[in-house]
Amino acid sequence: MQKITETIVKQTISRRKAQSHKGTYGRVMTIGGNRQFGGAIILSTSAAVYAGSGLVTCVTDPINFASLHARLPEAMVISNQDATSIKQLLPTMDVVVIGPGLGENYQALKLLELTFSTIQKQQTLIIDGSAISLIASHHLKLPDTHLIFTPHQMEWQRLSGLPIKEQTPRNNRQVQEKLAGTVIVKSHRTEVYLATSKNNWRNTAGTAAMATGGMGDTLTGIIAGFVAQFADSNQAVLAAVYTHSKIADYLAKKQYVVLPSQIITHLPEYMAKMAQSEND
Amino acid sequence: MQKITETIVKQTISRRKAQSHKGTYGRVMTIGGNRQFGGAIILSTSAAVYAGSGLVTCVTDPINFASLHARLPEAMVISNQDATSIKQLLPTMDVVVIGPGLGENYQALKLLELTFSTIQKQQTLIIDGSAISLIASHHLKLPDTHLIFTPHQMEWQRLSGLPIKEQTPRNNRQVQEKLAGTVIVKSHRTEVYLATSKNNWRNTAGTAAMATGGMGDTLTGIIAGFVAQFADSNQAVLAAVYTHSKIADYLAKKQYVVLPSQIITHLPEYMAKMAQSEND
Amino acid sequence: MQKITETIVKQTISRRKAQSHKGTYGRVMTIGGNRQFGGAIILSTSAAVYAGSGLVTCVTDPINFASLHARLPEAMVISNQDATSIKQLLPTMDVVVIGPGLGENYQALKLLELTFSTIQKQQTLIIDGSAISLIASHHLKLPDTHLIFTPHQMEWQRLSGLPIKEQTPRNNRQVQEKLAGTVIVKSHRTEVYLATSKNNWRNTAGTAAMATGGMGDTLTGIIAGFVAQFADSNQAVLAAVYTHSKIADYLAKKQYVVLPSQIITHLPEYMAKMAQSEND
Amino acid sequence: MQKITETIVKQTISRRKAQSHKGTYGRVMTIGGNRQFGGAIILSTSAAVYAGSGLVTCVTDPINFASLHARLPEAMVISNQDATSIKQLLPTMDVVVIGPGLGENYQALKLLELTFSTIQKQQTLIIDGSAISLIASHHLKLPDTHLIFTPHQMEWQRLSGLPIKEQTPRNNRQVQEKLAGTVIVKSHRTEVYLATSKNNWRNTAGTAAMATGGMGDTLTGIIAGFVAQFADSNQAVLAAVYTHSKIADYLAKKQYVVLPSQIITHLPEYMAKMAQSEND
Repeated sequence: MQKITETIVKQTISRRKAQSHKGTYGRVMTIGGNRQFGGAIILSTSAAVYAGSGLVTCVTDPINFASLHARLPEAMVISNQDATSIKQLLPTMDVVVIGPGLGENYQALKLLELTFSTIQKQQTLIIDGSAISLIASHHLKLPDTHLIFTPHQMEWQRLSGLPIKEQTPRNNRQVQEKLAGTVIVKSHRTEVYLATSKNNWRNTAGTAAMATGGMGDTLTGIIAGFVAQFADSNQAVLAAVYTHSKIADYLAKKQYVVLPSQIITHLPEYMAKMAQSEND
Repeated sequence: MQKITETIVKQTISRRKAQSHKGTYGRVMTIGGNRQFGGAIILSTSAAVYAGSGLVTCVTDPINFASLHARLPEAMVISNQDATSIKQLLPTMDVVVIGPGLGENYQALKLLELTFSTIQKQQTLIIDGSAISLIASHHLKLPDTHLIFTPHQMEWQRLSGLPIKEQTPRNNRQVQEKLAGTVIVKSHRTEVYLATSKNNWRNTAGTAAMATGGMGDTLTGIIAGFVAQFADSNQAVLAAVYTHSKIADYLAKKQYVVLPSQIITHLPEYMAKMAQSEND
Repeated sequence: MQKITETIVKQTISRRKAQSHKGTYGRVMTIGGNRQFGGAIILSTSAAVYAGSGLVTCVTDPINFASLHARLPEAMVISNQDATSIKQLLPTMDVVVIGPGLGENYQALKLLELTFSTIQKQQTLIIDGSAISLIASHHLKLPDTHLIFTPHQMEWQRLSGLPIKEQTPRNNRQVQEKLAGTVIVKSHRTEVYLATSKNNWRNTAGTAAMATGGMGDTLTGIIAGFVAQFADSNQAVLAAVYTHSKIADYLAKKQYVVLPSQIITHLPEYMAKMAQSEND
Repeated sequence: MQKITETIVKQTISRRKAQSHKGTYGRVMTIGGNRQFGGAIILSTSAAVYAGSGLVTCVTDPINFASLHARLPEAMVISNQDATSIKQLLPTMDVVVIGPGLGENYQALKLLELTFSTIQKQQTLIIDGSAISLIASHHLKLPDTHLIFTPHQMEWQRLSGLPIKEQTPRNNRQVQEKLAGTVIVKSHRTEVYLATSKNNWRNTAGTAAMATGGMGDTLTGIIAGFVAQFADSNQAVLAAVYTHSKIADYLAKKQYVVLPSQIITHLPEYMAKMAQSEND
């Protein structure tokens, strides 16, 4: 396997051009957050904003509007029951995230199906958490778009049919080819199987201090922000995976546990360092 | 074009007189924030408070009350459906901002019309975002008061009829004269066409790290706070434009993206520096 | 007039005794915060907690519960419509604050009357803002308890009948004697007329950077916390007035405007310094 | 009595194994927070998350969802009226906390009874605050599970029948034996009576700066996080008691009062120090 290192991040995060505006840095929609798991979509949405996406809209249960805006006035919100607005806005996005805190009930299924039927070919769809489980349990047909799956090992077992012990690079790659999307299998050393390259990648950063709820939701937001902004999608995915873990490694020097919200607030500073050393 | 530099900020922000109270530093009303765009009015209102306005009242959808107060207990709130209170309080204000997160539906139009019919001749009205689009699409007659428009280039196209490529100083000035208000065309080098002076101004500060949602909403709040406090309105407008970008430039030294809420929290410190060097 | 200086603060804030519990440091109830002015009661309540009161309960419109707890999980809340709970809990308090953001409508008046009829002789009642205006406009009879009034100059005019120009120490003292409570007339040099002492006091701290909304609400919370904790009520009042302004003076060295919420977060540190130098 | 010192904390908090995930560090459920006391359960839940528990679910009145998530997106929430979800999820937890801000009305009693009837033998149940009072007043039969009681002295009087003056180690131990659970009697020098050891322990850390509301709620969350993560439950309890007070001692060097939320945010750093000195 190829190693994911800081070199990729430095290659990916480039200095911004002076003549640009918020539209230049991509539109992201995050879909999830039912009544029980609102925190998950707050983290994913916050990560997309702090990672530099220019415009971020969060589709969630209205019970989560106040807490989201209390933390992040920079994002916009749409009710997860407002199918009309979703259908209208979703096609204008560069990247859509579905899954963080989505849940697995009937309403969640309908929202996932609406997303699948509305997404356009040129868009990128990041599928996480409950959305992965719903696809597995309901044998949903995947849409024809740029797909990125971000399962942890148990979710990957559900989607791929591979027990954790059989999740070898070779087996993972075989299932990836059927899914026709990029697959990110999250673990203490996350693996990435890119859809448009035969190389398999393994993360070299990461710490047990990250083993806490909301960490995966945060990764989806960083991936969304990076893919929305940077030219090369594959590099963006790899750089996001590394960035997420590397900030945690840094914080873990002084913290027993690293909270997802702490990683998020450190994104702008870490990214600035990487952009400045782009030509080193 | 004249250059907007720190000199203007130093001339504008004067040391406060010992014998003063909150009424001395102006009353500001911010109107906007529907169910979808609540964050925009939170940012605009916060900027007005941190810029030093003595008393700030936010008119918004009640769904935004909790998030606004969680971030900013210093502001007061009124429901955007409470026409009676708006009619009663609006004429007591020094500056009114309308537009951030207002939206463009029927309710937004009614609120804009209510504002136009209530505002008094001696007050200042800052018109931003959706309010600009509503004026353009509904051909609304402008009220007779001190007007400040803060369009980005696309909104300016809608209002002026000038395609972005034809937004030259000469053309912009011609439209400004018809509007009879100050026009601030936001871009990576924002331009200001003052209503009561023939000089055209271009900002010398600003960074691509500012290209993110909510940045314009924040500028309106700073302008409101400055106009409410400082004697010379033209200087106040120019100083606000520079201050907003200069703080971002400072933060961008260490951050890849600068969030509007971060600019807001740095206002008191930057303003103190400017006031202290007033006679340098 | 006597000068209020740091000496009084050092005399007042004593080191805490090892053998103590939260009940030792007093129970405070803050009453106020209608739908429009929720921020005021959030500030007052926060100040009481950060000033060291052991147990603080906030009586407010339920619309303010979420924002209060988002900022201050240390406080308890009761609906301002829950007369039963108020009647039951109010007599168990050491200090009650009424007024910050209370408003002046019929519901506010009823709440004020309920407070007047429930408060006990040995308790301290701090009367601020709208509560002062309501007393003046409705000629309410004051309850027989330890009263502290905290009007700004306009509110003092309403309550005392003295135009601002005639608010001389001699005149103020005369009205104070009729009110039979301590009177704190807030201005850039706040004056204190103690109920149980003939000395008149003037604050030596304070800055124009404090001239912003919510500042008075914050002072009431600090007074409540100090009176609830410290043995000598008169000293507690004077020390609170000075502490509030002195922290602002300190922050104003680097800030053009000082926000009430910033003063609040600095209370524990300033108080620690004063307690440590108690015997200097 | 044995002394609780930092040595126990160092022995308890071990470096995390690289190969781990959020499930490795335990599932915690916190139950409490009615309409009046929502802050208590926010503090308890936050403490469990910052203490390192991998997955934390808060069962509370839905009025507290927004404030909880505004502070802590890392936690999940369930309505305290959703008995179905509680019954389904509670048995999957490692540790359950019941009591912080629970209140003592009929609904609180039903929730306590539901918890008692649902909890499994191998789980740990921490009983705090109002839950202790409810057991005493309703003579509830305790469930057969690992029990930890965290009364302050007045609550211990209610539960044990011992007046505060008679709460000697010998008497406390006798009642503890009947309860068949670990008992933590909170005071300025908290005492611990472990269920599976005859040693009695007294805390050597703690400060009068901790005498403020919400402090006990915070302790329950730390205990829950430690018991969920660390192998030896008795050590985990002792280490949690010390950690809570030791962080407060540290903060009290510069603060007159230490707020519970400040202790919470310092947990990851203190725990990292202890883990690093584990072999010193």
